[in-house]
Formats: sequence, structure tokens, C-alpha cells
Amino acid sequence: MPNRKLIYHVAISIDGFIAQENGDIEYFPKEGGHIPDYIQALTKYDTALMGRMTYEFGYRYGLQPGDNPYPHMQTYVYSTKLRLETPDHNLKIIRENILFHVRRLKEKPGPPLYLCGGGILASYLLKHQMIDELHLKYCPIIMGKGKPLFVDEFQGIQLVLKDKKEYDNSVLLLEYDIAYE
Amino acid sequence: MPNRKLIYHVAISIDGFIAQENGDIEYFPKEGGHIPDYIQALTKYDTALMGRMTYEFGYRYGLQPGDNPYPHMQTYVYSTKLRLETPDHNLKIIRENILFHVRRLKEKPGPPLYLCGGGILASYLLKHQMIDELHLKYCPIIMGKGKPLFVDEFQGIQLVLKDKKEYDNSVLLLEYDIAYE
Repeated sequence: MPNRKLIYHVAISIDGFIAQENGDIEYFPKEGGHIPDYIQALTKYDTALMGRMTYEFGYRYGLQPGDNPYPHMQTYVYSTKLRLETPDHNLKIIRENILFHVRRLKEKPGPPLYLCGGGILASYLLKHQMIDELHLKYCPIIMGKGKPLFVDEFQGIQLVLKDKKEYDNSVLLLEYDIAYE
Repeated sequence: MPNRKLIYHVAISIDGFIAQENGDIEYFPKEGGHIPDYIQALTKYDTALMGRMTYEFGYRYGLQPGDNPYPHMQTYVYSTKLRLETPDHNLKIIRENILFHVRRLKEKPGPPLYLCGGGILASYLLKHQMIDELHLKYCPIIMGKGKPLFVDEFQGIQLVLKDKKEYDNSVLLLEYDIAYE
């Protein structure tokens, strides 16, 4: 049985940053045709995966500790450090056996899995060939420094561009398959 | 009189690197439709600008110290450190007053100026709003770490995508205007 795909779906500057060094994303365009498309894409996911810093980033936008940032999804936060009450049973913190947990999720039937970020979790999962696709909202900004897409060095892992869309604000949506060797 | 445009024209991984940390570019695709297009684009430039490390990078490919890596162009290497004989009068080392020199080049009539790299020179010129366009050969590889497109932090400088082309090896040629505030 084919696995569910794990999609790393994220906004990125033309020079490869998914946030400023302090975690802010204020430079990314907040208007334009890519926004409704992104909201539409979110409705197709039923499971979100993220690291601790990505989860805590929501606090800046009013998320309360223990809240599920994507109420229509089952959300998993992978963290050995995060300690909080999770009254919302659709939010779970996974503290160990991350690969085992993600592999099991992929084996269940359902729509693709949404990997929100950040670079640390994504890098770990990429290293173990768990990510199947990259969906980049490639934003027309230069940042120079910031949080990277991945945090480890890779030997030029190959991608295949399978779909793309251009918006009138110069954002590109680029959908890649990852071709592990 | 309008200035000549300065174009930073470079290959980049999807995560923002123009070379590995050691300067190698072995992961970038060496075949495919983007290569003849790049060679064709080079014929339209008559002046190349680069930093010392980009110049010295050519040594790995047989360039001899003092050679002009682009014999059909007037080449300028901007460096306070580089010391070498330049018997080829089409190769000049500019050791001081870089901005003044580049500004004067831009004021002369002629085709656009070719900024080859690297990130240090590009960052310095961007900071002084001297770069007009980015032409990115956006390559379908994940590197994770490497030499960045720019080395300094910028406040989300805006770009406008003015042209793009997709090649069958998943390389994208993306041509942006830089919209300084």
C-alpha cells in the first residue's frame, strides 16, 4: 500500500529563508492570489506536523499554549522540550520515537500530511527520507539572513518540479517531488 | 541618461546557496536547456564584475592567475587583498573606491553589466542599491548549507518577477527587478 505523502509546505524568500532570525515573517507578502490558494490548500490536509519553535511562533499571533493552531486538523508537535497542557485532544506533543510516529502516520490512509516547519524538524525528516514533496511559496523578497529551510548540509538532493503557478504579486508556488538516490 | 543595469546573474539552489561551503558547485546541473541559454546570455554582456573568491574559484577549472575568465569581456575583480600580475589588459583588479568605480561603469553607455558574484561583493553592492536585476538560475537541488546569495541581513527588499522560463530538467530561469524603497 502506498504511503501518504508528507509535504513540506512553506513560504520562503528568494534567498532561502522561511523567517527572520528572530522568527518574524513580516516581510512575506500578506496579500495576493497566493493567500486564498494557500487557505484552500490547507482545507485538503487533515494532519499537521511541526516543531516546537513553529508551534510557539503562534503565540505571537494570539495562540494560547495548548491551543491547536489548525483546529480542523490533527496536529502533532515534535519536541523533547515542550511541556504544556493539551486539553484539545486534536493537539498532541510527541516527545520520542519521532521517526516511528511519522512513519506510522504515513502508513495510515488519508490525504497528504502537512509539514509546517521549521527547519530543524524538516532537516531531521529529510535526512531520514521521510519528506516526499516540497511546496514552496517562493516570495519575491531578499532577506540575506534568517531561519533556513533546512539546518543541515545535504549532498545536493535532487528535486523534480511537477507544478508551478505565478501570482500577480510575483509570488511563485513551486511544487517539487524529492528524488532521493 | 539612464544608467546601464547591473545584473546579478547566478545559479542558486532552491534553498538559497550559490556554492557549497568549500566553494564547489558540483551539485548544480551541468546539462540541460539552461546551459545554452546561459552561454547565449553571456555573449550579451561586455563587462564582468566579481569578487576575489569568485575569481580564484576559476583556478579549480584551470584558470591561471592573471587570466581573464571571460576573454570576450572587460573583467573587474574587486579586492583589497588580491595581488597578481595582470598581463591581460582586459582584466583589472580594483582595490579601492569600489562604489565610485561601479557607478562610473554604470554611467557609460553599453549593454548591462554582469555581476558574477560572490555573496560578499553582491551584498556590498546591494546595500548601496547598485544592483538593478537578479537573474537566478534556480536549480532543483537541496544543499542545506553553503555560500549564500548575500551575506548581510536585508529588510525584505522587494522584487518584481519580470520574466521566467522553465527547462525540462526542472531548472527555472527567474528574472527579477529590484524595487528599492
